[in-house]
Amino acid sequence: MTEGKTVRLGIVGIGNMGSEHCRLILDGKCPETELCAVADLREERREWARKTLPENVKIFADGTELIDSGTCDAVLIAAPHFQHEPLTVAALEAGLHVLCEKPAAVQADRAERMVLTAGKTGKTLAFMFNQRTNCVYRAIKQLLAGGEMGAVKRMNWIITDWYRTQKYYDSGTWRATWAGEGGGVLLNQCPHQLDLLIWLCGMPCAVTARCEEGKWHHIEVEDDVTALLEFPNGATGVFVASTGDLPGTNRLEIDCERGKVVCEDDQVKVWRLGASEREICFESDDPWYRENAGMFLLDTDGENPQHAGVINAFAAHLLRGEPTVAEAGDGLRALELSNAIHLSGWTGKRVEIPVSREDFSRELDKRIAASRIRTGSDITYETDHSSGGSRKS
Amino acid sequence: MTEGKTVRLGIVGIGNMGSEHCRLILDGKCPETELCAVADLREERREWARKTLPENVKIFADGTELIDSGTCDAVLIAAPHFQHEPLTVAALEAGLHVLCEKPAAVQADRAERMVLTAGKTGKTLAFMFNQRTNCVYRAIKQLLAGGEMGAVKRMNWIITDWYRTQKYYDSGTWRATWAGEGGGVLLNQCPHQLDLLIWLCGMPCAVTARCEEGKWHHIEVEDDVTALLEFPNGATGVFVASTGDLPGTNRLEIDCERGKVVCEDDQVKVWRLGASEREICFESDDPWYRENAGMFLLDTDGENPQHAGVINAFAAHLLRGEPTVAEAGDGLRALELSNAIHLSGWTGKRVEIPVSREDFSRELDKRIAASRIRTGSDITYETDHSSGGSRKS
Repeated sequence: MTEGKTVRLGIVGIGNMGSEHCRLILDGKCPETELCAVADLREERREWARKTLPENVKIFADGTELIDSGTCDAVLIAAPHFQHEPLTVAALEAGLHVLCEKPAAVQADRAERMVLTAGKTGKTLAFMFNQRTNCVYRAIKQLLAGGEMGAVKRMNWIITDWYRTQKYYDSGTWRATWAGEGGGVLLNQCPHQLDLLIWLCGMPCAVTARCEEGKWHHIEVEDDVTALLEFPNGATGVFVASTGDLPGTNRLEIDCERGKVVCEDDQVKVWRLGASEREICFESDDPWYRENAGMFLLDTDGENPQHAGVINAFAAHLLRGEPTVAEAGDGLRALELSNAIHLSGWTGKRVEIPVSREDFSRELDKRIAASRIRTGSDITYETDHSSGGSRKS
Repeated sequence: MTEGKTVRLGIVGIGNMGSEHCRLILDGKCPETELCAVADLREERREWARKTLPENVKIFADGTELIDSGTCDAVLIAAPHFQHEPLTVAALEAGLHVLCEKPAAVQADRAERMVLTAGKTGKTLAFMFNQRTNCVYRAIKQLLAGGEMGAVKRMNWIITDWYRTQKYYDSGTWRATWAGEGGGVLLNQCPHQLDLLIWLCGMPCAVTARCEEGKWHHIEVEDDVTALLEFPNGATGVFVASTGDLPGTNRLEIDCERGKVVCEDDQVKVWRLGASEREICFESDDPWYRENAGMFLLDTDGENPQHAGVINAFAAHLLRGEPTVAEAGDGLRALELSNAIHLSGWTGKRVEIPVSREDFSRELDKRIAASRIRTGSDITYETDHSSGGSRKS
């Protein structure tokens, strides 16, 4: 396949996100990707596919049928969270490459199995962390990786503009249930920010969190999270997420040895010091030293290709060895942090990373056992491809 | 005295802050207050007083001499933290009114004793929470108290623009030691913000905090704090403070049922919703409801009288019964929250408010016992009257 000119892609799960991915490809946004097959367990979604997709796109009920059909070189997994791991493992073992929607899985040990299977089979596993394609985050990544800001000392992300009404949660019988989705704002909306946080600031080593379940909505899972993070170099962090704040906030502040970065309203403000604060602290004779650190707006390339960017990078990787947007290990790390926040919230204790797989599963399983998936039919929303705002999950 | 035209004031402790208060009065900024006496245990400060102050100002070594001298109707206590309580109690019991610098004391039980003594003697005890006079905080207080924003759901205060170099901490032998000062950024710099937080959002009922001691400086006490707050109505909060961030941040966000308030850069931005989010959540048919909540800058009166405002209100209270800026109980509450954050940081556990006086004292006493007040002479800085920035503590 790597010799061909396009990647033959199958999409497993054509609900909200999967059907958008179909449209992107059919609209010509992913020129190196050919949509060859789709799968969905729901008859009404297959009916949608029959009506909407070109005739040459094969339609399956079960994802494993699609995987075994020989029609695809790669699959995009957009099925419910709990199916990410078995479908990904099945596809990799069948010799297919996998691009998996976030979160990688519900439990970190499942994500680990996905990563291990990718390594064992030599196939590519990548994740749909489309927010990494946003020019503002790419610019921050480049700034921090360049070293001119020095080490990170503190970060604070208020990501509360994921507002959802009760109607949203009522739209799917699986939504916001432990058995159906495995988590709330952490697992559905925030995998992007958890991934970006790790990408930009590094992986935390411990978490103390408060997760409030059904605080703002009639749901089982958490819709309000406040987490205190610790990083290996001593830096600290705060992560606040909610689907109950209106209007919410999306503000990321990163304090470094040589200045400060604030990302809000699609702008990145940077304050850069003339020297490292760590030197100033011990060398200045001014007890109240201040520096008129000039603030400037960080230049970006303005590009924000989102899902199409991830799919195109995935195809370019398979065809020409170019880098994917997010690798197998990135999916695991974001989920590891998510699991740690959940576990700390459940136990009321500080949790070290990596998280005990046993402790996490024991607590989650308790909640799944008591979970009540609602009755009623699902609604699939016809949403447009937003450029990275927070109306989409 | 309440029949006179001015309040005869004595100032106990004429270091950095006390000497500034002297200048304010002598500069005519406090027309209803007459500086009658000062006291300082340090000969070099009395020498400063002899050289600087008018001849009619009596100069004492011991604060209790000043209190007992009959020269004053009221005293302003600007002595080290541990002396606030004994001096305040002595003054009240001697029939004097007291305006006390922040923090009220080091331990909440001492502040309680101050409040009780004020009640018992019928004398006025007020606190120097000069940041309450800042027009931006007064405007927010008025907005929230007016009820149009609905209940507070979340708050987040990043107050990290209290930058101090090592030189600052080296300037006083008592500075940043457990025995000399009793705490760090919480007790020296942040009593203002803790008071404002309570004033604006109400008193938290529990705290989970991380306090890092000597993280950025060679000091005993905490210079970096991250606290997760819980309020009785279920609201949550985050409070981040540091003297090691450059350039730091002073950003207060308060999310309410009917909108959001953000105070930064001496501006207050308000987003106001057409209805309560709590109604929208359950009544809207839009799963991803958004509202183009118009942002506007909150009007203020532009006044920021700071220390002079507090002293003048204190005098007006004594002369004409007008309200003080901050009452006896306000000092206790701010210290209660401070103690809770310290205790949670020390124990690594969630701490409920009111704090156990025994637990707090046990932990503090351990640190005082191991404390090493440095040798060397103190430096008193000649600072100007800033308008509420954070160069002053």
